[in-house]
Amino acid sequence: MKGPDRIQLVEVGPRDGFQPIGPLIPTAQKIDFIERLHAAGLRRMEVTAFVSNTAVPQLADAVEVLHAAQALPGMDAQVLVPNLRHAERAIAAGADHLAFVVSVSEKHNRNNVRRSPLESAQEYSQIVAAQPRGAAMRLNIATAFDCPFDGPIDPEATLALLDHLVEVNIDAEICLCDTTGRVTPDRVSALLDAARRRFPLAKAWAYHGHDTYGLGLANVIAAWSGGIDVIDASFGGLGGCPFAPGATGNVPTEDVIWMFERMGVAAGVDMQKLLPIACAGAALPGASAGGRVREAIAATARSSSS
Amino acid sequence: MKGPDRIQLVEVGPRDGFQPIGPLIPTAQKIDFIERLHAAGLRRMEVTAFVSNTAVPQLADAVEVLHAAQALPGMDAQVLVPNLRHAERAIAAGADHLAFVVSVSEKHNRNNVRRSPLESAQEYSQIVAAQPRGAAMRLNIATAFDCPFDGPIDPEATLALLDHLVEVNIDAEICLCDTTGRVTPDRVSALLDAARRRFPLAKAWAYHGHDTYGLGLANVIAAWSGGIDVIDASFGGLGGCPFAPGATGNVPTEDVIWMFERMGVAAGVDMQKLLPIACAGAALPGASAGGRVREAIAATARSSSS
Repeated sequence: MKGPDRIQLVEVGPRDGFQPIGPLIPTAQKIDFIERLHAAGLRRMEVTAFVSNTAVPQLADAVEVLHAAQALPGMDAQVLVPNLRHAERAIAAGADHLAFVVSVSEKHNRNNVRRSPLESAQEYSQIVAAQPRGAAMRLNIATAFDCPFDGPIDPEATLALLDHLVEVNIDAEICLCDTTGRVTPDRVSALLDAARRRFPLAKAWAYHGHDTYGLGLANVIAAWSGGIDVIDASFGGLGGCPFAPGATGNVPTEDVIWMFERMGVAAGVDMQKLLPIACAGAALPGASAGGRVREAIAATARSSSS
Repeated sequence: MKGPDRIQLVEVGPRDGFQPIGPLIPTAQKIDFIERLHAAGLRRMEVTAFVSNTAVPQLADAVEVLHAAQALPGMDAQVLVPNLRHAERAIAAGADHLAFVVSVSEKHNRNNVRRSPLESAQEYSQIVAAQPRGAAMRLNIATAFDCPFDGPIDPEATLALLDHLVEVNIDAEICLCDTTGRVTPDRVSALLDAARRRFPLAKAWAYHGHDTYGLGLANVIAAWSGGIDVIDASFGGLGGCPFAPGATGNVPTEDVIWMFERMGVAAGVDMQKLLPIACAGAALPGASAGGRVREAIAATARSSSS
């Protein structure tokens, strides 16, 4: 079993993790989390989203958070955008790394953005055209493997949607997202392999998974051993699972880092600095946290000191 | 990614899971759990251990539990034994499948059974000689990867201990155990590969892992894709982690079965029957439970009915 010697972890907690939290997190506290995560070595984050302030009041402070994140040295701050209008807002605010999301599942895409996947694909072309020269693009393919409404997604459906997207911007990083946590490692490997064979010119691929069914790290390993070196994760496992409230969601950054550190795979993250931030994130009022490593390390420490 | 089309799950909950629980579980309740697990399709279990009743009062009813398990049709009931004296007790009680445990780590073996690993290896020879013809043997290699006292174990140390054990009974099933949950998938693959190359005549290999650091399923997949088709697990994730009290322990049967079912790998277990048993196990007073699937399925059900 072999994969890249180094991974880039994309910390999505400040967006994916904070978004479902009900009680508003003060903007200063969000910025403090981002600064501490940056100080722990995380240099790429999805720091916020430009979305409807009415629908997602938690992220209404997107401009302020983006600017604070961009001020950190060496920081690559990406922001999620669901459509052209919000992409234009993000670009106007100075965002130089957009993450556009489109679902393979018709139902899921309509539920998210009231458009068909092909309508979203057309909008993607317009967003790419609207970006200033040199700006970066992440393309998130939601329900790439499994849909909360329709169950398993045929890999051909995902590849067919990519037919409409990849050539629009061959420099985009394409992230295959397991939205429900129900994909298994065999299917992660198979779809990533098929996608890379079908689109050999696509510049970069990434994987985004959930730990809802305990498969978080197993699927990350499947992606990594298939050659993927860009992995999304959320500190504290923040994010929950919107389709299974009460269950855990995003794969936790500290669990991913802990595993890769033991495997000798570099991620540039200081686990000792990361851990207290992850604990503080998991303790946010209204947060749905996940992960094992925080508790395992705390329990081992209690045990050795007793 | 490919592995065996079928796995045999060894349900270790009635021994490994019950053993650390403080409040005594009534014998009738233990037998009821074993009968329900059997009815869910589990045909191989570590049902109890023959150990010191003073040290482990929870398993003082070993004879009664063993006999009840052996009465179930098609059941392969294995019992753990730590030394010759207790093996003789087990054999006298009619046990026809012993599981002998020896640690690679000197400290861990002395802590467990007050013997050096080589002394335990000599005792293993005596136990094999004491078994009646046709009885089966499982050899559990504890701390095969990592020791709670000494940290990572050199693969050569594990192979060197196996040099003293494999030829004693070439028909034994040898289980490499990750005692602490700290092994990573790359090392599971590497050691299993090396062991099978070094001992090509050994009849069968198995893997036993923990989910303490979230690596439970990732490591099971590493073993499976390396060709291992015998996997230990504990219903409800029962078992805790003796070296990190409060953290989760054994990889949960229901998480393993759920994953392999979605992968089309047969295990002969009925998930619908298994789930309520796993929930009941996790709810036992004093139990340290683990796993994700119970909660994910319950949360999805709540969500769809609301």
